[in-house]
Amino acid sequence: MKLLFLGTSAGRPTLVRNVTSIALQLPDPHHRFWLFDVGEGTQHQLLRTKLKLNRLERIFITHMHGDHTYGLPGLLGSRTYYDGAGRLQIFGPPGIRSFIDHAMAASQLHLNYDLEITEVEEGRLPLEDDLFTVETAELHHRIRCFGYRISERPRPGRLDLAKLAQLGVPPGPLYGKLKLGEDIVLPSGETIRSVDVVGAPVPGRILTILGDTAPCEAAVRLAEDADLLVHEATFNAGLEEKAVAYGHSTIAQAAETAAQAKAKRLAVTHFSARYSEEDVERFAAENQSIFPNIVAARDYLELPF
Amino acid sequence: MKLLFLGTSAGRPTLVRNVTSIALQLPDPHHRFWLFDVGEGTQHQLLRTKLKLNRLERIFITHMHGDHTYGLPGLLGSRTYYDGAGRLQIFGPPGIRSFIDHAMAASQLHLNYDLEITEVEEGRLPLEDDLFTVETAELHHRIRCFGYRISERPRPGRLDLAKLAQLGVPPGPLYGKLKLGEDIVLPSGETIRSVDVVGAPVPGRILTILGDTAPCEAAVRLAEDADLLVHEATFNAGLEEKAVAYGHSTIAQAAETAAQAKAKRLAVTHFSARYSEEDVERFAAENQSIFPNIVAARDYLELPF
Repeated sequence: MKLLFLGTSAGRPTLVRNVTSIALQLPDPHHRFWLFDVGEGTQHQLLRTKLKLNRLERIFITHMHGDHTYGLPGLLGSRTYYDGAGRLQIFGPPGIRSFIDHAMAASQLHLNYDLEITEVEEGRLPLEDDLFTVETAELHHRIRCFGYRISERPRPGRLDLAKLAQLGVPPGPLYGKLKLGEDIVLPSGETIRSVDVVGAPVPGRILTILGDTAPCEAAVRLAEDADLLVHEATFNAGLEEKAVAYGHSTIAQAAETAAQAKAKRLAVTHFSARYSEEDVERFAAENQSIFPNIVAARDYLELPF
Repeated sequence: MKLLFLGTSAGRPTLVRNVTSIALQLPDPHHRFWLFDVGEGTQHQLLRTKLKLNRLERIFITHMHGDHTYGLPGLLGSRTYYDGAGRLQIFGPPGIRSFIDHAMAASQLHLNYDLEITEVEEGRLPLEDDLFTVETAELHHRIRCFGYRISERPRPGRLDLAKLAQLGVPPGPLYGKLKLGEDIVLPSGETIRSVDVVGAPVPGRILTILGDTAPCEAAVRLAEDADLLVHEATFNAGLEEKAVAYGHSTIAQAAETAAQAKAKRLAVTHFSARYSEEDVERFAAENQSIFPNIVAARDYLELPF
């Protein structure tokens, strides 16, 4: 899978960073993707990538502040121009439905695809598909704000090809059945058990994307053992009081959360417009003592994981 | 005065054209400006100009379609970051107030300046200031859509310096009074009448900016004798039926309106994303037989007038 940062600025756009949006490119050949937050201009940013709006399947909104939501109505409208745009699901905090409904009614926007809006609460979302389970928890911000933990289901283990040959199982459809956990009976009458020829399931990857937040227990919990944690880092050291007052984190605090959660990798984003590109690169490097595997996001950064 | 095109695409942004917005730079040394329509990403486009949001005084919205309005909430929010941002006035069709109120409430956006929203109807707006009168009329679109005619007040005529010297009027504050229409009395007791030493008033400039529209009488009326007419031209010849069905104009129809109105100059904009840069340049040239002084707008085009 791959994460693509479409906007990494807090509050307002700058000449080099747009407001928040992150695309998750799914592990499939159809270029399907999900979006986390849709700040104003997200559809513009997408024009400069290979992602097409008809391949967008789900949108997750962390909270209702405008730098995370104002791009929604325009993106929904522009999606009508793409052929074959199927159902689109939006998950977001209470208030997301009314925001979208009002914007669409005011502008008389009519969609040519199904839009399904779900207002989320703590816990497991009503989202468990073939590939993923998505959980959510409430963070600590000025308004209700959620983080999302996307857990990939374990994938089937590897087939023991040598053993299969030894047992006389012919390559072909029987391999597939065994891999998916099914026992088979050979023409000889012999039963081959899946567990005997398939290795342990490969654990699924875990991705955690947090909304705006001051350090909190829910953030650590959502990020536990995550392969990749995306954490806001609006401010740097020296502005801790401002961070607390506005329900934000410093880069050091983001690094501490990653360390506590034993996450494997941390991407910090959502930087105050006061910082330059060089500033945030330096800040990230300075906080490697707290959490070594840290990267400062920038617009269009791709992170495979 | 100067017009600056910030977005010239119809419906959705492209890699080279944003959705609709036009800045009018006022004839003053304080870089004040007005905006006509605020499509998504207008605040991003402004970052690439010299215009600062604290100098934005008025916004005029032609109609509620999203490609003309979705940039409003974000722009209002970002204006709070600029020092000295005073009162902001918004004029727009019925529905504009509820759209802004809902977006602000949903995102808990609080402004640090006064916002005054006026829903317009046909006729003279409640806007006559020292420099301008603004009139509006309803056009012919799928939803209620307005055009704006901005008439600069006549400016005082030129002082006849030779005559003033001959009459013994000393240069200084008395010149200013005479220029503003005041009669003065010299120390000698002689009365000097303003009309005798000041030329005829210089007629004010007229700017007409129309929203989306099929050809209609109101468009011609608003554009009468305009120094500069901005007219949509979503389609080119061959798509007349589509233009009518969607309440739009072809470039030829825009040129015909300009000719009927005896406008002095025409800028066409709001082009369908199907056309390339070269296409619209060629279309404009092809329609010079209908109206010679025609220019195809592109993003960041500046038109002094």
